[in-house]
Amino acid sequence: MPRLWSETIETHRHAVRDAALDAAAEVIARRGLASATMSEIAETTGIGRATLYKYFPDVESVIAAWHERQVSRHLAELEDASDRAQPSRRLEAVLEVYALHHRERADSALAPMLHPERVHHRSSSHGHDGHVDSAHQHLIDLFTKLIGERVQAGVVRDDIPPRELANYCLHALSAAATLESSAAVHRLCTVVLAGITRRH
Amino acid sequence: MPRLWSETIETHRHAVRDAALDAAAEVIARRGLASATMSEIAETTGIGRATLYKYFPDVESVIAAWHERQVSRHLAELEDASDRAQPSRRLEAVLEVYALHHRERADSALAPMLHPERVHHRSSSHGHDGHVDSAHQHLIDLFTKLIGERVQAGVVRDDIPPRELANYCLHALSAAATLESSAAVHRLCTVVLAGITRRH
Repeated sequence: MPRLWSETIETHRHAVRDAALDAAAEVIARRGLASATMSEIAETTGIGRATLYKYFPDVESVIAAWHERQVSRHLAELEDASDRAQPSRRLEAVLEVYALHHRERADSALAPMLHPERVHHRSSSHGHDGHVDSAHQHLIDLFTKLIGERVQAGVVRDDIPPRELANYCLHALSAAATLESSAAVHRLCTVVLAGITRRH
Repeated sequence: MPRLWSETIETHRHAVRDAALDAAAEVIARRGLASATMSEIAETTGIGRATLYKYFPDVESVIAAWHERQVSRHLAELEDASDRAQPSRRLEAVLEVYALHHRERADSALAPMLHPERVHHRSSSHGHDGHVDSAHQHLIDLFTKLIGERVQAGVVRDDIPPRELANYCLHALSAAATLESSAAVHRLCTVVLAGITRRH
């Protein structure tokens, strides 16, 4: 098989897979997590049910793949925010993007789908949860790295390991899900940062 | 019916109910949340299955009642810690007790049972969840009151509403569930407090 042809097939497969994940999100927003079926996902994707089964063995796998894609996109978004900011503003920028993302999740019709506990509940017997742990690990690593840089710069406290501070930040920022305005999210970020800032 | 007699019946009912809740916790620790049955809870309580049904219509109700009892006890424990401490140390004391409690929950064999999301999942169609929201409201109220006192004392920042700071504290302290030592829990409390402390 010539290389170009196999690339075309690969591209096609990715496109179908992506379309199926978009369709799954749509079906779940419409029906709820528990009532989504392979038939309806296939129909919404615009492919046959048999074709969908070539990509995913069951609804749980579609959900797990969708969730993995969301988490990867979110991580990419955070890394982007970090790269775009001045070095001295990177941590603040990532905190804000993370917190705002949490608030949007809470607003979304897909919120139940996005909740790792729920996804875990539906897919726990299928072993698709590794990506959630690994994504969480990436998040902790990203925050730990940015915090470590600010410790070096003498801005963040050095009496507590950066990884513990990263863990604190992620939990504290999840309060954004309950907030009503982006002004309140900004205030939350100020408080979270104050917690880790070195006192002079 | 003489008053004493009705009081005796009331006391007896409370004792049976309490014993059934203890038994439920034991059965769930042994079998897991999904496999607990009314028969096994009755047997572990030392009463007949028919008697248990006079108290609770199904396993979900037992779980909801158990959870409600745990949350009430936890709130009482926090209020105790607050009352026992010097006024200037009340907020710190309650933060520590709350955080340590979160860590113990994570350690416990009953952790899945204690997770409100899970309880919600098993009992969501039965309408027993009001107590979780109302307990959470009590927690927020308690933290808001203690934070308000420290704002008055000029120790806690006054640029952010006490209720938002209380919400931040509760989320940030939930990081305790992932920590391995009580020293780390203490460090977490230091960071959380630093977040809300007024800068001079």
